[in-house]
Amino acid sequence: MTSNREKAIQFARENKVRFEENLIELVKIPSVSTDPEQKWAMQQTAEHLVRHLLAIGFKQAEIYPTEGHPVVVAQTKPDEKKLPVLLVYGHYDVQPPDPLDLWKSKPFEPTRRGDRLYGRGASDMKGQICASLAAIESVFSQNEIPLNIKVIFEGEEEIGSPNLAKFIETHKELLSCTYIFNPDAGLISADLPAITYGLRGLAYFELRLYGPSHDLHSGGFGGAVHNPAQVLCDVISKMHDSKGRVTLPGFYDKVRPLSDEERKEFSRLPVTDDYYKQTAGVSELWGEEGYTAVERIGARPTLEVNGLLSGFTGNGSKTVLPAYAMAKISTRLVPDQDPDDVYAQFIEFLKDNLPPTVRWEVTKMSGGPALLTNPHILEAKAMSRAMETVWGVTPVFKREGGSIPVAADMHEILGVESVLTGFGMPEDAIHSPNESQHLPTFHRGIESIIHFIYNLIEM
Amino acid sequence: MTSNREKAIQFARENKVRFEENLIELVKIPSVSTDPEQKWAMQQTAEHLVRHLLAIGFKQAEIYPTEGHPVVVAQTKPDEKKLPVLLVYGHYDVQPPDPLDLWKSKPFEPTRRGDRLYGRGASDMKGQICASLAAIESVFSQNEIPLNIKVIFEGEEEIGSPNLAKFIETHKELLSCTYIFNPDAGLISADLPAITYGLRGLAYFELRLYGPSHDLHSGGFGGAVHNPAQVLCDVISKMHDSKGRVTLPGFYDKVRPLSDEERKEFSRLPVTDDYYKQTAGVSELWGEEGYTAVERIGARPTLEVNGLLSGFTGNGSKTVLPAYAMAKISTRLVPDQDPDDVYAQFIEFLKDNLPPTVRWEVTKMSGGPALLTNPHILEAKAMSRAMETVWGVTPVFKREGGSIPVAADMHEILGVESVLTGFGMPEDAIHSPNESQHLPTFHRGIESIIHFIYNLIEM
Repeated sequence: MTSNREKAIQFARENKVRFEENLIELVKIPSVSTDPEQKWAMQQTAEHLVRHLLAIGFKQAEIYPTEGHPVVVAQTKPDEKKLPVLLVYGHYDVQPPDPLDLWKSKPFEPTRRGDRLYGRGASDMKGQICASLAAIESVFSQNEIPLNIKVIFEGEEEIGSPNLAKFIETHKELLSCTYIFNPDAGLISADLPAITYGLRGLAYFELRLYGPSHDLHSGGFGGAVHNPAQVLCDVISKMHDSKGRVTLPGFYDKVRPLSDEERKEFSRLPVTDDYYKQTAGVSELWGEEGYTAVERIGARPTLEVNGLLSGFTGNGSKTVLPAYAMAKISTRLVPDQDPDDVYAQFIEFLKDNLPPTVRWEVTKMSGGPALLTNPHILEAKAMSRAMETVWGVTPVFKREGGSIPVAADMHEILGVESVLTGFGMPEDAIHSPNESQHLPTFHRGIESIIHFIYNLIEM
Repeated sequence: MTSNREKAIQFARENKVRFEENLIELVKIPSVSTDPEQKWAMQQTAEHLVRHLLAIGFKQAEIYPTEGHPVVVAQTKPDEKKLPVLLVYGHYDVQPPDPLDLWKSKPFEPTRRGDRLYGRGASDMKGQICASLAAIESVFSQNEIPLNIKVIFEGEEEIGSPNLAKFIETHKELLSCTYIFNPDAGLISADLPAITYGLRGLAYFELRLYGPSHDLHSGGFGGAVHNPAQVLCDVISKMHDSKGRVTLPGFYDKVRPLSDEERKEFSRLPVTDDYYKQTAGVSELWGEEGYTAVERIGARPTLEVNGLLSGFTGNGSKTVLPAYAMAKISTRLVPDQDPDDVYAQFIEFLKDNLPPTVRWEVTKMSGGPALLTNPHILEAKAMSRAMETVWGVTPVFKREGGSIPVAADMHEILGVESVLTGFGMPEDAIHSPNESQHLPTFHRGIESIIHFIYNLIEM
């Protein structure tokens, strides 16, 4: 006679189409957290999720307002305080879709092409939220399980979760749990499951330079007044040395060196330089001397220019000496760098390198420390086995270049480490035009989470 | 008994209000030559000018289509081939008005505040066109004069006059003349008239860098892929050395050194460093070592960043590693630099300084050589005396930082040097938000042109 586990898997396979439709519905809502004009969409997404949670069997599901976008919290057995608790994390907000003209189909009109569903958020991370809810629904479709499943879906991850830590702090009881599952990490490729045990931190800044009191005629003033666009380029070009190292004072002081053991692990990962060239579409890589690409991304801190704006950028020519220049600059951090230290280093660097001919301002946008979790905890094993069951391959344990500050916050506040994985991959082009979710991997994800839940119970 | 000259001056004084209204009407039409969406406004401005020219007594006024925006040519005595000819040049196109949010009143809704009329083009150069036509109308209001006055108004000066030289070449006969008056230069201040004998040339480029095939997640790829925004900053920062000199190979080879005589003239101009600080609204100046600000602007070549664009520039933060970065970069040239040489130097510089990690393209936007005219020709004296009559001050002869390529083209094709002056000044904020024309100077300009015309006849 077939087990509940097998029946749940069966249910998931019979409901593939409906699970994909659920994802399409969620991607349709333009929940861009950084855009004030989309505030309505944030509320609508939260309400959509609450309806869905109650529909698939959660007993309690509520929207909690914050100073920013609302948080959704739900649980299946609010009254059974004795049961172990699995807390599932997700963020329902997405990155801005621009540049719009590079999308083959509209970012909020999810479109299937081949094995992929295209749309902003399809992979990061509405696909992961829908996979989790599909798995939970599949389990519920069978019998009761001795596990209380809680979910927390925030709406501000893409803007640095400014209100989440405070929310967790003030709702410790509500969010108390035994295990945390966070599917905001990802796989390396469709045929290789992965569990992430390391993440980089983030410190994001906006730098604004002010030169003359107004835009000037470049003929009438060029050569007499310092051009803030030029000053911006000068100072940014000083932020790296000839070896590709970041030059902020003290930037590397707290960086934990890579052990030979770790470097060996990195070398085992099937991500060669060619792999990165192909995925990024470049002919040559670049970066800090002395490290492989996968090491630089996974275990070395970096500094990136995320945006530049100054003067006239329209069609044609305008002979202007701009009054203003702006750059968005972010650093990715590794253990044990502190985002606040890096902010101080950034300010010190600017004080040392900006001339008195311009006035400047810096805004601290978002940030969080790096994270290294213990890959040997029980729940990690439960996920590892689940993935092995589904893929027939032992998952690799990896360190990622991205940042998931919430995992560090939850560990600190709730005292529980997160199992970090996910069913997106680099080819998904998250944060880019034509983001997509690989649907076969989406369904493998659903089955993995079903097995994960049963493994937790039976282990 | 009062002379015709005095009667014409009288007429101008009685019609001040109407002459200002003519300027207001012209500024209302948004003739932005670089914006394809304003094409209708270019045609409308040309038609408006033709109507006005015929109304004030021109016998012949026609619109000539070009591959770009139309040219307006008119003359007062088409049938009297024997008369000396004064050709008046003007451009009816204007710079783009952005950044719009910095305008106190709408750029195409001319608004009077105090002594000034605010609006895009009020000073550059619709104010100068209207002053010229007001003066001509005032002269006509009296009797016939033994002079055929021709005008040529182009619509592409602000985009580098791509079609004008060809037009002049193919309409030599129509434009043949004895004197050329070009009021697209300007004064140093309201109480000091000036005639410009030197202008800088221009070579304007758009540089586009292409990195990865699409925007990347800065966490997933930062540190492995070369960021084109960073590469752009690196290469731009190399375009000047520590002494503020431009580093394009051979850039200074053909630069005519400043003679002691010229430096003495420059030192006589009432434009101190403090003057430039005040006008530009900066606390410190910047530029090539060894030269005063007025020398750097008037007689030394410079390179300016006119615009920068890359990645995410909206509100908030987006953790993107951009696929693309763009800069608009222009050089101001002095005798005897050749814009084509400078283009070649720019390309060579990029070949030497851009890494193989990015793909790049350069578009040559517009350009023209510098100009030095003879300040002692008869028509220059006629204008000098006219200004002295109106201001009671001897005008200064100066070299300007801006560029008026048409003056060089006309000299080459028509064999006639231009009298370069104008009734705008640095405080007018041309090419900037809140451009304005100082109206008392506008009316002094009208009287100066009346005296200039009578001086030409009587000299």
